[in-house]
Amino acid sequence: MLTLYYAPGTCALAPHLALEFAGADYATVRIDFARQEQRSPDYLRLNPKGRVPALVTERGVLTETPALLQFISQTYPQAGLAPLDDAFELARMNEFNSYICSTVHVAHSHRMRGSRWADEASAIAAMQQKVASNIAECFTVIERGLPAGPWVLGERFSVCDMYLFTLAGWMKSDGVDIADFPKVADHFARMSADPVVVKVLAAQNAAA
Amino acid sequence: MLTLYYAPGTCALAPHLALEFAGADYATVRIDFARQEQRSPDYLRLNPKGRVPALVTERGVLTETPALLQFISQTYPQAGLAPLDDAFELARMNEFNSYICSTVHVAHSHRMRGSRWADEASAIAAMQQKVASNIAECFTVIERGLPAGPWVLGERFSVCDMYLFTLAGWMKSDGVDIADFPKVADHFARMSADPVVVKVLAAQNAAA
Repeated sequence: MLTLYYAPGTCALAPHLALEFAGADYATVRIDFARQEQRSPDYLRLNPKGRVPALVTERGVLTETPALLQFISQTYPQAGLAPLDDAFELARMNEFNSYICSTVHVAHSHRMRGSRWADEASAIAAMQQKVASNIAECFTVIERGLPAGPWVLGERFSVCDMYLFTLAGWMKSDGVDIADFPKVADHFARMSADPVVVKVLAAQNAAA
Repeated sequence: MLTLYYAPGTCALAPHLALEFAGADYATVRIDFARQEQRSPDYLRLNPKGRVPALVTERGVLTETPALLQFISQTYPQAGLAPLDDAFELARMNEFNSYICSTVHVAHSHRMRGSRWADEASAIAAMQQKVASNIAECFTVIERGLPAGPWVLGERFSVCDMYLFTLAGWMKSDGVDIADFPKVADHFARMSADPVVVKVLAAQNAAA
């Protein structure tokens, strides 16, 4: 039994989707960011980084979205959520997920979390002003890199699609029009209509 | 045959070390950052992101350090550079590598690459002022997370050790004293003395 600690509106959506698409036996625990619960002593004992997602397994706690996505894929291989039998395709999956976490998510974080990287209010404001162009640049890279489709890895649906969907959902608040990126927009529309995605979003919103 | 595109002083050191520790048949191509070669049309055709590392394989170009580290480990399984037979341990490896790329490397980048996230000189200066405390915070997380050792994953030497060594080598210029982190310092000293590490650093410096 796996337990996912998450907060709505965060990248924890991606492993939450992966657990549901995998047909996993799992529980979720919502962390209330409004009450700074991610900084509570109890949560910091679980995850000293004070972030979500965190996945509690029988062997210990795992963090970092790309690691969780591959772990869930490997724990439920019958779900076929990752190209586990092909090292090159698996590297393409991890290349995509690594770009999302280290570049796209980081670009996004400069809108709400600028205080991580500077103390002055003017510097934090300057970072916010550059978020839209940075996110647009990231999605230009993604749009060009997407194959004919229908999925991030081509014919194969994978955890990359859940991670892309998660970040694409932040574009509007980051000041970027998803319609400027036709393949990303089409992907987002298809994911949004998927019953599994609808179910997981409803669960996260109901708990909120 | 694999070909690694790298620049000295970058995170491309980690996959370079992995190729050498793996006993791989590989070539390297140095990209001259001083001449902005990473932005040249030829290089952008190879890697549209304009960054290093990039690894040219028979099936295409791969980027993103965590993806390369697992790919090299899987391509040369006899070298034992990753816990490929244990999904949980492999997730711990990827958790560590993902933290390095998305948090530690990003904290470091705000010293020299602040213009990625803001245009104003004052904002870029404000980011630089916070680099030392952010890097110290990252290495506090790493120090606490390191097992009794001797390696990042405990008894098993892995690509995590190459990635940690790479970032630990930047601490001094980031304004952080590695001696404040005894386990990291000990790890760095042991890695520095390894003949494979000495060989790869000499090769990178000779080419420069």
